[in-house]
Amino acid sequence: MIHDTIAAISTAVGEGGIAIIRISGPDAIIGADHIFASKISLKDAESHTVHYGHITDPVSGEKVEEVLVTLMRGPRSFTGEDVVEINAHGGVIAVRKVLDLVLQQDGIRIAEPGEFTKRAFLNGRIDLMQAEAVIDLIRSKSDRAFTVARKQAEGLLSRKIKALRGTVIELLAHIEVNIDYPEHDVEEMTSAYIREQCLLAIAELDKLLKTASEGKILREGIMTAIVGRPNVGKSSLMNVLTQEEKAIVTDIPGTTRDVIEQFVTINGIPLRLLDTAGIRETSDVVERIGVERSRDALQGADLILLLLNHNEPLHADDRELLQQLEGRQVIVIVNKNDLPGRLELDEVAGIMPTAPIVHMSVLQESGLDQLEKSISDLFFEGGLEAADLTYVSNVRHISLLNRAKSSLEDAIEATYSGIPIDVIQIDARLAWESLGEILGDEAGDSLIDQIFSQFCLGK
Amino acid sequence: MIHDTIAAISTAVGEGGIAIIRISGPDAIIGADHIFASKISLKDAESHTVHYGHITDPVSGEKVEEVLVTLMRGPRSFTGEDVVEINAHGGVIAVRKVLDLVLQQDGIRIAEPGEFTKRAFLNGRIDLMQAEAVIDLIRSKSDRAFTVARKQAEGLLSRKIKALRGTVIELLAHIEVNIDYPEHDVEEMTSAYIREQCLLAIAELDKLLKTASEGKILREGIMTAIVGRPNVGKSSLMNVLTQEEKAIVTDIPGTTRDVIEQFVTINGIPLRLLDTAGIRETSDVVERIGVERSRDALQGADLILLLLNHNEPLHADDRELLQQLEGRQVIVIVNKNDLPGRLELDEVAGIMPTAPIVHMSVLQESGLDQLEKSISDLFFEGGLEAADLTYVSNVRHISLLNRAKSSLEDAIEATYSGIPIDVIQIDARLAWESLGEILGDEAGDSLIDQIFSQFCLGK
Repeated sequence: MIHDTIAAISTAVGEGGIAIIRISGPDAIIGADHIFASKISLKDAESHTVHYGHITDPVSGEKVEEVLVTLMRGPRSFTGEDVVEINAHGGVIAVRKVLDLVLQQDGIRIAEPGEFTKRAFLNGRIDLMQAEAVIDLIRSKSDRAFTVARKQAEGLLSRKIKALRGTVIELLAHIEVNIDYPEHDVEEMTSAYIREQCLLAIAELDKLLKTASEGKILREGIMTAIVGRPNVGKSSLMNVLTQEEKAIVTDIPGTTRDVIEQFVTINGIPLRLLDTAGIRETSDVVERIGVERSRDALQGADLILLLLNHNEPLHADDRELLQQLEGRQVIVIVNKNDLPGRLELDEVAGIMPTAPIVHMSVLQESGLDQLEKSISDLFFEGGLEAADLTYVSNVRHISLLNRAKSSLEDAIEATYSGIPIDVIQIDARLAWESLGEILGDEAGDSLIDQIFSQFCLGK
Repeated sequence: MIHDTIAAISTAVGEGGIAIIRISGPDAIIGADHIFASKISLKDAESHTVHYGHITDPVSGEKVEEVLVTLMRGPRSFTGEDVVEINAHGGVIAVRKVLDLVLQQDGIRIAEPGEFTKRAFLNGRIDLMQAEAVIDLIRSKSDRAFTVARKQAEGLLSRKIKALRGTVIELLAHIEVNIDYPEHDVEEMTSAYIREQCLLAIAELDKLLKTASEGKILREGIMTAIVGRPNVGKSSLMNVLTQEEKAIVTDIPGTTRDVIEQFVTINGIPLRLLDTAGIRETSDVVERIGVERSRDALQGADLILLLLNHNEPLHADDRELLQQLEGRQVIVIVNKNDLPGRLELDEVAGIMPTAPIVHMSVLQESGLDQLEKSISDLFFEGGLEAADLTYVSNVRHISLLNRAKSSLEDAIEATYSGIPIDVIQIDARLAWESLGEILGDEAGDSLIDQIFSQFCLGK
């Protein structure tokens, strides 16, 4: 049972026309009534009604803010509890002053990040996978990522996991019967049945896991590092891709000192672009910090856009970069192809035979289409269109699905090794629990706390 | 008459638990109904009620977002028109998708910045001064600025301006009678009356204008430049004041290349801090840009915090800075007073005799209290406490009040110069119009457009 009442600012921080302070819990209505001067008491108001009035300091009597207050009585609310939402002017100060007053009321404390959604989960309104989709809905930065999250929030993926659990629970029941009443069954038949059921479940798991790598990219974006020698056009490329002047572009080598990250969507493919300081040996201490950060960004990148200068012969630094990037996912961009060609492309292809080579003039913004196509080819085998967008996209889910799969594989193997059936039962149970952990049925408190702590405040 | 319906995102942009898409105008309800799948039609719903459902693409039938929709029928709404507010998940994509669908409905277009508030003004719900306070409410960055804006939004300042207009209209009426029926009045008496009424109004105007400089500071903050030779601790001071590591602090002269602005409140006094590149001659092109920006920031500053190094003798560059700053509002900060003193304070006091000198160790965060006190002394003569916070704070209002005052002064002067009374009438009418322009009664369309264009979107 939840006894306390929580409150937080539920709209994004910043200047806006409206901001919402949300209160949820048993003291939400009485607490709000205490600071809300209006023609009506909220406690007498019907659910799902809106009331005009002023948030007033009950001590000084001072009117703090002109507001609209919305009342939603539990269980017909997002959390399943009594919820009061105060719509205030969207300024930082207004919102803080109202929240301060709310938090001074008996039984009301500030909500932890994600705590409203956590209550919706704890009150059984949604499962853990749906709860996690709520944060993905908010964070999604492309249409497709949003659609993936929405299907998950609606419970489409939950239903697939539940069906899988159904298969495993049948298996478990069958094993249980065999253990309790061994005379009812021939062991040989049970082994065959176990294998069959496990393979069935594994096939379903594989279908889900097949969506995982694309799902993860849709959710998180392709971490993309732009690298190359100083002054080859890295910041300019980033600006062209993002269509704004976030990075300062000058013709001075070593201008970029910090790693700048920016999210862009290219043909529906989300990229997290890292603009990195021109990697070179330098005596400038500040610049050297930037160079080190570039190297780190490089290590974590899913995709590397290596810029070379069409107008210059391959430099020793270029060769070194090419060598360092062996085995990585690289697209070579030959920039400045509006200038005469002095670059030996054969040598580039020799060092990095599988990397796509894209010819561009960043300055003239030509060649972008080809770059976009290369990225799409590398990560989505040419297209995203066919998918029904029921992707597994969350690392936690992927790892639990893999764990379930490996438990089922263990079970199959065990049937061949003459291992006692109650040991096989343990494998099947592990698979069942891993799947349950995805939905939150088997999730411990610390896991749940950890998941919701990733949420933003006020959700 | 307003015929079209407007829509916009009314919450701040960014990640948040809830975002609101607001629709206002004659087609708000019918448009929302068309894309809102719910148990009830909004057109049948009562005003000030909230309804759960899904925003659904009427063409594809696809559910786009799970929402709560609030209905407020005009005139009982912020704009005075029918208003529908759609509460969606607070993600950028969710909000954009819902807004896109809303804007596809007949008769609905995207709202211009401030257009909801403009409609509240055009529909006579608030005057122009109150409308302007709405944006101040949102923008205010300190408690006091917020209170100033709230009093203005409530109409406290409007009432004072209306009272002033009352005085001037009496004067105008008297003059009118004198022009129409000169036989009813002795000209000498009229002159005396005019002077008396004008002086009365001017006294009231002076009271208001006296609050203006403090009001403007409360509203906009004191533009404060931190200057000094490289490496004297400018970025560190900024970090101490803002209590965060926004500026990169290193021990390399010339680290700061851009002018960084940050808003802080010191004892309720809002400062807009400009951290400027260390001003020095430099051969580095990028750094030189930074130095130039520093010099510009210096020109526009209300207050200059000049840092000197306690541990070094006065440098030629320091002397040059001190000379350049003559006549400006300067506080001299002697930093690094934890180290042995090698600075000649007498010389500093000699060049800049009236500037307060504050001893600090930015590194040890000592001396901050004294700095805060010095700023408070300079701008608020020691304190803000006494004021009732009905300040004139808006530059537009200040300039119109000054214009009204100068018209009334012209009228007084005219009574002494034997100028015909119908010319004096023109002066009085100008004063009346200037005051009316503050409230919006006499404001032209272009002025109104200009004022509301400064608003944020969705307000």
